[in-house]
Amino acid sequence: MDAFAPTVTTGPLPASRKVYKSGTMHPDIRVPMREIAVHPSAGEPPVTVYDSSGPYTDPDAPIQIDKGLPRLREAWIRARGDVEAYEGRSVKPADNGFVSGDRLTPEFPLRQRPVKARDGKAVTQLAYARAGIVTPEMEFIAIRENLGRAAAKQALARDGESFGAAIPDFVTPEFVRDEVARGRAIIPANINHPESEPMIIGRNFLVKINANIGNSAVTSSMAEEVEKMVWATRWGGDTVMDLSTGRNIHNIREWIIRNSPVPIGTVPIYQALEKVGGIAEDLNWEVFRDTLIEQAEQGVDYFTIHAGVRLHYIPLTVDRVTGIVSRGGSIMAKWCLHHHRESFLYEHFAEICDICRAYDVSFSLGDGLRPGSIADANDAAQFAELETLGELTKIAWEKDCQVMIEGPGHVPMHKIKENMDKQLEVCGEAPFYTLGPLTTDIAPGYDHITSGIGAAMIGWFGTAMLCYVTPKEHLGLPDRDDVKTGVITYKIAAHAADLAKGHPAAKLRDDALSRARFEFRWEDQFNLSLDPETARAFHDETLPKEAHKVAHFCSMCGPKFCSMRISHDIRDAARQEGAQKEGMEKMAEKFREGGALYMPLGEARGE
Amino acid sequence: MDAFAPTVTTGPLPASRKVYKSGTMHPDIRVPMREIAVHPSAGEPPVTVYDSSGPYTDPDAPIQIDKGLPRLREAWIRARGDVEAYEGRSVKPADNGFVSGDRLTPEFPLRQRPVKARDGKAVTQLAYARAGIVTPEMEFIAIRENLGRAAAKQALARDGESFGAAIPDFVTPEFVRDEVARGRAIIPANINHPESEPMIIGRNFLVKINANIGNSAVTSSMAEEVEKMVWATRWGGDTVMDLSTGRNIHNIREWIIRNSPVPIGTVPIYQALEKVGGIAEDLNWEVFRDTLIEQAEQGVDYFTIHAGVRLHYIPLTVDRVTGIVSRGGSIMAKWCLHHHRESFLYEHFAEICDICRAYDVSFSLGDGLRPGSIADANDAAQFAELETLGELTKIAWEKDCQVMIEGPGHVPMHKIKENMDKQLEVCGEAPFYTLGPLTTDIAPGYDHITSGIGAAMIGWFGTAMLCYVTPKEHLGLPDRDDVKTGVITYKIAAHAADLAKGHPAAKLRDDALSRARFEFRWEDQFNLSLDPETARAFHDETLPKEAHKVAHFCSMCGPKFCSMRISHDIRDAARQEGAQKEGMEKMAEKFREGGALYMPLGEARGE
Repeated sequence: MDAFAPTVTTGPLPASRKVYKSGTMHPDIRVPMREIAVHPSAGEPPVTVYDSSGPYTDPDAPIQIDKGLPRLREAWIRARGDVEAYEGRSVKPADNGFVSGDRLTPEFPLRQRPVKARDGKAVTQLAYARAGIVTPEMEFIAIRENLGRAAAKQALARDGESFGAAIPDFVTPEFVRDEVARGRAIIPANINHPESEPMIIGRNFLVKINANIGNSAVTSSMAEEVEKMVWATRWGGDTVMDLSTGRNIHNIREWIIRNSPVPIGTVPIYQALEKVGGIAEDLNWEVFRDTLIEQAEQGVDYFTIHAGVRLHYIPLTVDRVTGIVSRGGSIMAKWCLHHHRESFLYEHFAEICDICRAYDVSFSLGDGLRPGSIADANDAAQFAELETLGELTKIAWEKDCQVMIEGPGHVPMHKIKENMDKQLEVCGEAPFYTLGPLTTDIAPGYDHITSGIGAAMIGWFGTAMLCYVTPKEHLGLPDRDDVKTGVITYKIAAHAADLAKGHPAAKLRDDALSRARFEFRWEDQFNLSLDPETARAFHDETLPKEAHKVAHFCSMCGPKFCSMRISHDIRDAARQEGAQKEGMEKMAEKFREGGALYMPLGEARGE
Repeated sequence: MDAFAPTVTTGPLPASRKVYKSGTMHPDIRVPMREIAVHPSAGEPPVTVYDSSGPYTDPDAPIQIDKGLPRLREAWIRARGDVEAYEGRSVKPADNGFVSGDRLTPEFPLRQRPVKARDGKAVTQLAYARAGIVTPEMEFIAIRENLGRAAAKQALARDGESFGAAIPDFVTPEFVRDEVARGRAIIPANINHPESEPMIIGRNFLVKINANIGNSAVTSSMAEEVEKMVWATRWGGDTVMDLSTGRNIHNIREWIIRNSPVPIGTVPIYQALEKVGGIAEDLNWEVFRDTLIEQAEQGVDYFTIHAGVRLHYIPLTVDRVTGIVSRGGSIMAKWCLHHHRESFLYEHFAEICDICRAYDVSFSLGDGLRPGSIADANDAAQFAELETLGELTKIAWEKDCQVMIEGPGHVPMHKIKENMDKQLEVCGEAPFYTLGPLTTDIAPGYDHITSGIGAAMIGWFGTAMLCYVTPKEHLGLPDRDDVKTGVITYKIAAHAADLAKGHPAAKLRDDALSRARFEFRWEDQFNLSLDPETARAFHDETLPKEAHKVAHFCSMCGPKFCSMRISHDIRDAARQEGAQKEGMEKMAEKFREGGALYMPLGEARGE
């Protein structure tokens, strides 16, 4: 493994082709989508799906990890005329945990001067939206979100329960602008991460998912983390959080950002803690502020800030079954208690906003007091903090900063909706971004599933982005396979939520896959699925031969018991011309003449 | 693999001990439970959990597959004085698909004469319940369901939303009788399956799960199916359906039933179809009736009967995206259409009841027209059939037969509750038994998850038993690993539903595991989980050393970022004697004196 040019997974998914759609207001934008071809016998157009994977799945895009991705937003950012390049902060030994020599992850080879807002201007998408400006980012998003709605328009029977969301039949750039202006959606897009493809997080858009990666003091390396990022976006990760806590944090993050087609989030307190040798009580505003600028200059798109963990809330956690389970939350609680002072994050929040405003770093207001067990769900500590997050949201909005709100955690099903309802009310409809929630504590090893249940439900209720949980949750660090399992599980939850909310066109992919299933187009069934490789591999375990891919039955039932096969006969019979007129008796007669229904057993078994 | 004495998985789960509790009304009953020991440092009693695994997990029980399990209910059945032994039907070549020689699965070595009701009496648990009799089965169930409620009684703050269910604080034998008498719960307990441990399926009891096994024309063998049955119950399967459709159906089923500690369900039309060479239109009442008696004599505990697929409903399926996806449903639809006649299952339903009444075979009224895709959910065909199932329920109840109702299928989240509400209304609160439902069609390979979401929700809404879906759904036949994944996923769904419904004591296991987590009792955390082996294996992937099992951190974060570790410090500080009186300033001071928080990094990394 060459640390200087790690290899990542590239190439299209099966039967898939990257296509780009141009803008109208901004003709130079190229919005990527993935077209999945279906068999000619279907007589159907390709199915177009949302594509978070960036240039890695485009065979025409040259990929060189040590060069980074093309800086597609750079011209748009410059064109607004409100930023200036400057020298930027120089990297200090503390930024990488004081490692050196062989243990130091090499710097990313290319260095660009960072940009920041000129003259205290707000360079946030929220500021532009409020000023009535439809940015290229907004038009990009409108095209991206609309996917398939035009095609589906004629059949657009809306069917869903959106719990008061305002999902439009068609997403216009103006709708995007309006939602951002209202604070109901955010576009995480640091001006120093021009490589990212614009995406939006909001209740009236498709439900998004985040994948966490990151090394720890215990394990992991840069090359692995870059590949995890690429891998996570390949399967559908809409954003990636780099939660590294070990050494080399600065350099690893640089490699990740320069190569990431999706927004990158971080929890800056982690790196700040590393800078003070892991001693929470030694943290201070200066080292934290320095870390924010360091990361903003690198291009981090959103910061988790645990400014809602206030001193007087800490006693509320003392009788909990699992105390404080947020790392950032516990660090801040410890700091507050040790100094018996209000959190410096809370006290300096306006200054944090000034930094975010100068780079367009979005806030992800952290739920440092989220419940870590069923027993602690929806308790006083959790909801006290939520009130504070609502208060901080208003401050951030005054500063033209974009905000989303983090949510739990561990919550039994009957307490999930209360979380959503309270969040909408208290935080002025700022987007909600939840971890799961896990609906039971008793299944370590399967927490992608315990939480996938809660994620689907809260996504339906209105959560805008779901933070994935992998099978390793509570047990270990996720590897590449775990990342994939987590992403696919959360794509399922997000899509199930989109369906239930009644997102126009969400059902197109389900219908296309179901038609393929009914028509025994096995290859199409694999290719239209979220994970074609696994679907195919599972099928091949029982029926490995290529001939079985065109078989009009499957191994679950074998040919004699194939309900779909029988359904075809029934349908053919029922659709015989004039069947209606001639009545059921005649229909049955025609059906009787229909001939052989089954394939010989030998054929079915490949004999 | 010796076909005559297949080996199965035996032995206790980690840290677990089988205990038996005696009855009061019926002192000879011994209700099995599993006690999970926790580390002495916890100062807590063992956690007792529901145990579906039968004698296989009891090291004191001799297991010999060619002898079958002890016939624990035999004396109870005889004592009622209403059954008689008789010669029974002799096995015909057609029962095993006309195979012979090497391809014939050997007969089970021991043959018992079957019993049936004497003089047309009803020997069903429903008949006894209506007569005011509390059977040993009912007391067994009361003890089994109560599990932990006595211990939890003092802290019994009910917390849940049960959607109108009537879950008692404490389950008495009389409550069991009453629920069975009302038809709101069933006890599947064929008098010819005395080996089974009584269990109940009803909305006011713990949510149960079913695991499907069975060979097909394409693959599988007797030894594999017996092991799958044992394996499925080991991980928590409450009932097992043998869905075999290939050859050797009769003999394989006999091996399964004689060794099954849980009720066995079947779909008799599958075997009937085999008997007529796979030609649906050649089916007739006589061959079906013969099959029912054959299976009732063997001890099948519940029959799926697709008597709701009526001739005039078939045209309602013609414009569906996926037609009829139930195997039994499609077979019957084909028969009806071919003959242009009403279904013989519908027309002979009263006679079917007479058979079920004579052996106490419960009905699982099949949803032959369930939707097979999101597009077809909650459509006219589905709900028309449901009305008929309600009508058949009344007929069965008149005959003293026990009934549950099968449900879908593929249903997006916003249409799930309607299924439950309609079923309760139309079927007089007979227990609902659903397959998933799958909440999206786009994830073959992960349909345990797409359906686990729907299963948890519909279980919360009131479904009494959830039929599992494995990762192989739509793709292939589940192997042993798939069976386990399916069972664990559905145990998660069922338990999440129990929690949300507010089942008293359901939360005890969550709380015990969460305390173990907070107190870094790693071994306890593994042992209390649904799948200790997987939890341990995942932990070991990152931190393999035994020393790490007592580490006060985990590999997700490493020692410096361990929120739980920090929480302990916070809690200790806050709990310092008199902390409240001395005020927060003093508390903070004491905390400052607290000493070293972190382990040295080297120690953490095992250096």
